[in-house]
Amino acid sequence: MTTSDPILPDSLASVRADVRRTPAYPFTPIDTPVKLDQNESPLDFPEDLKRLALERAVQKPWNRYPDLNADTLREKIAQFEDWDPRGVIVTPGSNVLIKLLTEMSGIGQTVLTVKPTFAVYELEALMLGAKLVEVPLNEDFSLPLQGLERELQGGPGVFYVTEPHAPTGFLDTESDVARLVEAAGERWTTVIDEAYHQYSGSDYRNLARGHENRLIVRTFSKAWGLAGLRLGYALTSPALASELQKLVPAFNINVMTQAAIEVALEYPEYVRERAQATVAERGRMLEALRAHPTWRALPSSTNFFLVRTPDAGAAYQALIDHGVLTRRQDKGYLLEGCLRVSVGLPEENDRFLAAAMQIQAG
Amino acid sequence: MTTSDPILPDSLASVRADVRRTPAYPFTPIDTPVKLDQNESPLDFPEDLKRLALERAVQKPWNRYPDLNADTLREKIAQFEDWDPRGVIVTPGSNVLIKLLTEMSGIGQTVLTVKPTFAVYELEALMLGAKLVEVPLNEDFSLPLQGLERELQGGPGVFYVTEPHAPTGFLDTESDVARLVEAAGERWTTVIDEAYHQYSGSDYRNLARGHENRLIVRTFSKAWGLAGLRLGYALTSPALASELQKLVPAFNINVMTQAAIEVALEYPEYVRERAQATVAERGRMLEALRAHPTWRALPSSTNFFLVRTPDAGAAYQALIDHGVLTRRQDKGYLLEGCLRVSVGLPEENDRFLAAAMQIQAG
Repeated sequence: MTTSDPILPDSLASVRADVRRTPAYPFTPIDTPVKLDQNESPLDFPEDLKRLALERAVQKPWNRYPDLNADTLREKIAQFEDWDPRGVIVTPGSNVLIKLLTEMSGIGQTVLTVKPTFAVYELEALMLGAKLVEVPLNEDFSLPLQGLERELQGGPGVFYVTEPHAPTGFLDTESDVARLVEAAGERWTTVIDEAYHQYSGSDYRNLARGHENRLIVRTFSKAWGLAGLRLGYALTSPALASELQKLVPAFNINVMTQAAIEVALEYPEYVRERAQATVAERGRMLEALRAHPTWRALPSSTNFFLVRTPDAGAAYQALIDHGVLTRRQDKGYLLEGCLRVSVGLPEENDRFLAAAMQIQAG
Repeated sequence: MTTSDPILPDSLASVRADVRRTPAYPFTPIDTPVKLDQNESPLDFPEDLKRLALERAVQKPWNRYPDLNADTLREKIAQFEDWDPRGVIVTPGSNVLIKLLTEMSGIGQTVLTVKPTFAVYELEALMLGAKLVEVPLNEDFSLPLQGLERELQGGPGVFYVTEPHAPTGFLDTESDVARLVEAAGERWTTVIDEAYHQYSGSDYRNLARGHENRLIVRTFSKAWGLAGLRLGYALTSPALASELQKLVPAFNINVMTQAAIEVALEYPEYVRERAQATVAERGRMLEALRAHPTWRALPSSTNFFLVRTPDAGAAYQALIDHGVLTRRQDKGYLLEGCLRVSVGLPEENDRFLAAAMQIQAG
């Protein structure tokens, strides 16, 4: 992360320097016909399920605070995930969970991750006054086992592993991840972020099960197609959950989200089917891009992939000119020239591919 | 706040001591026919407006992330509040705002408030590692001007004033509050929390307008009758909002809440009418309680009031036995024997009054 040190007026002297010198979340909304920039599901939540969720929401009182800790929802997620409900924490988006983990085990301690990685780990660490340690990924995007093992001798703090990883799309083996979480021992809150696991078919819950200081993060924002609802969750031990729950703002999941997520959990069949379709489309796109004269698409285990271009800025703009929005990642370590492309609907992907084939210098 | 220092297993060594020794949010849900414990509006959001909100929600894509910073909603709130939209921040509940303010200007600095006060100011300060300074209220519950002026020479940090105050229901004059925010000068992020202002008819926005480091907090959870939706907001300067917005998790207001709050802002007439009915009921309850042989109800400018009983624990339980839930406040400074009673619907208030009149020892 680059940081700046802007000169603010004296009237903002109460704002901590860590906040002042951290940049805002790097995101610029741009309106295009084809939106492949946020790794969303290209299909909306099924309309009949929407109606069912809203009918339940209308029956609930909106004037009353929701469940203090969303206990009913936590129990349904626990059942779905085969997890002890006392170890489930829900928040309005998994980015909130990352903030709370940084509050719990990062402030004045260490946040350990790799680079490149998800910007929110870094931004929360910088703003909340954690020491941020980022070990460079190997050139093939696999986890730098020895480098991380060295840093894991430090701590205490929060240690993030993202499987499959973003923004690379790389999936490490369960044994490699196991080696690291063992090395982390008891001095770290070890977080395995599985935001995209439905696309890789991987499931590393067993690395956290039975270990008090380990935690799995999952979300309804990707394969479930519910980014607009904001629901992320953690699977951890009851002991760690009790500490983390103190930091969760009371009543934090509203009645409508509770109703909608409960409906999704009752009718989860669509998720697997859609994830499979996305994986098939990803294969088709990567195959088609092999014919590109100057771009090189990189393999991925997620619903997005990286494409290395001669000039990311030019390629990004040229795609927008063709009505397709992607995400620049070229400032990241190892990511020179890279754009991140979400897998969309077949017709959206066709439009991306047709545009890509017309762009060579970018 | 009392704190304990529980012995946790070594496996939780990464959890910061500030979190471990802070108690959880003090709230125990109990199911009773009459619920006067959370200062909610006793009337639900009007059903026709619910339907309108949900119809808009169904039209929006749920698979897409909502607005990064809920710009449309911020603009509508700005218009409603006659405020610069660049100075409006929205969060899922104003308790989230308090967390973010503590992150921005409290960590490693000072949080200054009075006692007794809203538990969330204290809990966030303790957990996030701010120095918590609480100046005792005057015996009539008014602000301790000289004590606060003395502490305001310290800082930097966050300074909270709640008008009208919770849990006392007391409203300080605008000139007293003005004196304090002037004394706070530039070394504090000065927060005027107006969660209950519709019941007092007060409006201290002018104390923040034009001052970069001052901030008004308001909520849809009380007079708007939308606690179940979770929406709080800040009115501040564009400069302070830019810093605070960095700490707001991206995409934090979901599509359904955005739709519902936008509808509320288009049809706000019910709020004033309902607040007036609540104020009238409050007067009726306080008047009726004058006849109580052992309880003394205290005046209030909000939708709740305190009642001092000979034995708060016994009174609380006896009311539950009569089907009425209130909130114990008797552990608070100056609040010996006190229960906090929310003003409900006339028939709920009748039931409370009938029960109260049968309780004397409690």
